[in-house]
Amino acid sequence: MKLYDAAWAPSPRRVRVYLAEKGIEVERAVVDLRGGEHLCTDFADINRQRQLPALLLDDGSVIDDSLGICRYFEALHPDPPLFGTTPKEIGLIEAWLRRIEHDCFQAVAISLRNRAPAFVDRAVSGEWPAIPQIPALVDRGHCMWNAFADVLDRHLDGRDHMVGERVSMADIAGLVAIDFGIATRLPDPRIGRESLARWHAGIAARPSAAA
Amino acid sequence: MKLYDAAWAPSPRRVRVYLAEKGIEVERAVVDLRGGEHLCTDFADINRQRQLPALLLDDGSVIDDSLGICRYFEALHPDPPLFGTTPKEIGLIEAWLRRIEHDCFQAVAISLRNRAPAFVDRAVSGEWPAIPQIPALVDRGHCMWNAFADVLDRHLDGRDHMVGERVSMADIAGLVAIDFGIATRLPDPRIGRESLARWHAGIAARPSAAA
Repeated sequence: MKLYDAAWAPSPRRVRVYLAEKGIEVERAVVDLRGGEHLCTDFADINRQRQLPALLLDDGSVIDDSLGICRYFEALHPDPPLFGTTPKEIGLIEAWLRRIEHDCFQAVAISLRNRAPAFVDRAVSGEWPAIPQIPALVDRGHCMWNAFADVLDRHLDGRDHMVGERVSMADIAGLVAIDFGIATRLPDPRIGRESLARWHAGIAARPSAAA
Repeated sequence: MKLYDAAWAPSPRRVRVYLAEKGIEVERAVVDLRGGEHLCTDFADINRQRQLPALLLDDGSVIDDSLGICRYFEALHPDPPLFGTTPKEIGLIEAWLRRIEHDCFQAVAISLRNRAPAFVDRAVSGEWPAIPQIPALVDRGHCMWNAFADVLDRHLDGRDHMVGERVSMADIAGLVAIDFGIATRLPDPRIGRESLARWHAGIAARPSAAA
């Protein structure tokens, strides 16, 4: 088994933080995203979509998605549980994971990929025909980012975790999405949002967050 | 427990097909999306995001996402398993679910919501400040739709199911996304794509597909 990983990018970080919380060690190969190594033929043999992370299994199969990789390891090593234990927790964690993805992570992605010169004609992640940038999406992403931060701040009022009483994959995905937005120079959502800021400080202080 | 459901819309259908495959009966309330009932105050008390489906639990909690609802029922009633059994199946089903969502379902959604008069200033699903339509996204959605159909056709060469040897949530989400695109007048992806057409016919012929 080998995990294809990359520095800086949010989706590989989601898996690294997850693995650190679980205490799981995996053999890794680091792909140079900034140097465009994922766009080269060799990497396309591993993952035709040219996206990171990707987990190559011993039978030659590839799981080419961050949450798919985490759920694979969760099935192998259930403890500590990061996708919930009761049906209600399991359902709410999935609902928050999808909401963070659509309403926060994608807000950052559309804002970044439709403005940065590195993504000209690659405005959507993955292997596509040329997809031109649409500058109007930068504002849409910005608007969604601010609105989601308000929703999250209200949700976290009186809560230390997204769902239930302990850290879950929803906290990890939330941390990664928020940090990705801050790194790409969206407005810092912690300013003026006390509950969000308190939650973020708690999750960011865990040793796993440095993975 | 009560499931807030709606006719025609794809996300409620995802849950109905899932429940039919599992043989699970749930009390339902049907919300009139076309009449705008989800935009009224009463429904906002159930789901502040004004989205369907939503599952109201007996303790007053709400799971406001289709896959969150399905995973809740999967934890309560594991058989027959629709999210995989082996770690590899579990990981691959999640990876396909996320890919269908990003690369296919969202392609349909951006194409529809950025052109249809019903979605003026509501170009993204959910409760947001006014989000104006961006007509250039109609072409982007169309391009993604066609490219994803090619990817899916190649994947389904020699396969009857998205992952493994039996129907899973990935087949259900794929069926719902493809049918949603066809219903909103994107080009029929079955034409000229034999493997995709064969897979679609197989899943659409299951009694659950009529749910």
